[in-house]
Amino acid sequence: MTQLKKQFISKPILVRYGETDQMGIVHHSNYLRYFEVARLEWLTALGVSYTSMEQHGILMPVIDANLSYKTSAFFEDSLIVHIQLEEIPRVKIKFSYEIKNQKDQVVCLGHTSLAFLNAETRKPMRCPDNFSALFED
Amino acid sequence: MTQLKKQFISKPILVRYGETDQMGIVHHSNYLRYFEVARLEWLTALGVSYTSMEQHGILMPVIDANLSYKTSAFFEDSLIVHIQLEEIPRVKIKFSYEIKNQKDQVVCLGHTSLAFLNAETRKPMRCPDNFSALFED
Amino acid sequence: MTQLKKQFISKPILVRYGETDQMGIVHHSNYLRYFEVARLEWLTALGVSYTSMEQHGILMPVIDANLSYKTSAFFEDSLIVHIQLEEIPRVKIKFSYEIKNQKDQVVCLGHTSLAFLNAETRKPMRCPDNFSALFED
Amino acid sequence: MTQLKKQFISKPILVRYGETDQMGIVHHSNYLRYFEVARLEWLTALGVSYTSMEQHGILMPVIDANLSYKTSAFFEDSLIVHIQLEEIPRVKIKFSYEIKNQKDQVVCLGHTSLAFLNAETRKPMRCPDNFSALFED
Repeated sequence: MTQLKKQFISKPILVRYGETDQMGIVHHSNYLRYFEVARLEWLTALGVSYTSMEQHGILMPVIDANLSYKTSAFFEDSLIVHIQLEEIPRVKIKFSYEIKNQKDQVVCLGHTSLAFLNAETRKPMRCPDNFSALFED
Repeated sequence: MTQLKKQFISKPILVRYGETDQMGIVHHSNYLRYFEVARLEWLTALGVSYTSMEQHGILMPVIDANLSYKTSAFFEDSLIVHIQLEEIPRVKIKFSYEIKNQKDQVVCLGHTSLAFLNAETRKPMRCPDNFSALFED
Repeated sequence: MTQLKKQFISKPILVRYGETDQMGIVHHSNYLRYFEVARLEWLTALGVSYTSMEQHGILMPVIDANLSYKTSAFFEDSLIVHIQLEEIPRVKIKFSYEIKNQKDQVVCLGHTSLAFLNAETRKPMRCPDNFSALFED
Repeated sequence: MTQLKKQFISKPILVRYGETDQMGIVHHSNYLRYFEVARLEWLTALGVSYTSMEQHGILMPVIDANLSYKTSAFFEDSLIVHIQLEEIPRVKIKFSYEIKNQKDQVVCLGHTSLAFLNAETRKPMRCPDNFSALFED
């Protein structure tokens, strides 16, 4: 039975000034962007360029997401995203996320599911075998 | 028994060019911004300025959110957010959202919960009575 | 001699919460987005869909921009963009902008130049005649 | 005569997916954000926390900016911002920027001026001496 290379830890993400709002904290929409940064950094670490996937006709739009905000993040915080593959990808791929700050506090938890889409037809497709193979040991 | 003024329909939101990504669709993080626009427009329609709430020491950060993306939105689409209060607000306030495009297709569904926070102490507080009263008939 | 339909006034743009930063004002990068909203609203008012231009192979990237911030804009401000065509478009098109708030104060002045690009080759092209004709009386 | 520590080179900034638009390139508003990242990274390198400056009552809003876009930046590009202090800061501080990609191509040039503002009164103030001293040798 195949094992999944299920986890990845992103490089630190420094909170940008423009990501704060007038409450003095990171605007809640940015966490979806941090999740995305981690997800695509993982692909790169696995030797895959998402750009070249798109050029080969595979799109991966987010189809659902949830976020649970645990504590605020602030300008200049250094955030690390722990990302995990939830199950063997078939028609969609599910990730879970835990973002921690420089004090090792949990800032945000979340999940996203992404579909595989044929770029030409914009119809769903199965996860390509060589893609799911990336996450196996 | 009090009834809730539970529903509100936002003004149309025209998708901006800068909200698209290279997939040619609205980047998924923007829907949290559209939800927010509708939520604050509703407060304004109820006669409340969120700015003045903040000046009176009440913050309302989002503490959890979920989104289900049904169909893509595109540049120049005209989106309408149907927003609903889920229950009588106490320590948090829960809204649900349905975004439809100009063809009346459901683009995105979602929920958010917001806490009431004392701006000074950044501690949770109960929903102020005059705030919850806004949503009653 | 042809005259230019040189001016357009945008619909009011309500400042969104997520456009503020921790200084409590609109983050300065957003004005480029407001300029863009006004510019594309003008095209729409002239009967042109920028989307269909792109589909017909014409891209219009911004090639230079400048902004002069006169007074801060705040959440819930209602901004109006006065936009003006600077000269008959040839290989590029130049606009100037003045953003005013609901108190008729000038918030921001700016200019942008956009190139015409062949979407296929990504090479510069001359402004299509039917496009420049849009701005003539 | 005092010399200025006039130059700084930012850490690489990886272009994020959400920073692209449907033209397939980085949306032009993001360069102001990259400038900001470099500017604040420089302050940090000089031993100054902009957050603590704000807490001590000094705001530094951008008051003018210009940008010249030389070549497009793409998702996954690695950008480096070369930033330079233009003159000894008095009532405002002027920086110039050059962004290069991983192929050493110039992507964007620009300038910004920032004012010093008393956070309480929101009135302009002179550059604090200990701040201008940071940039001297």
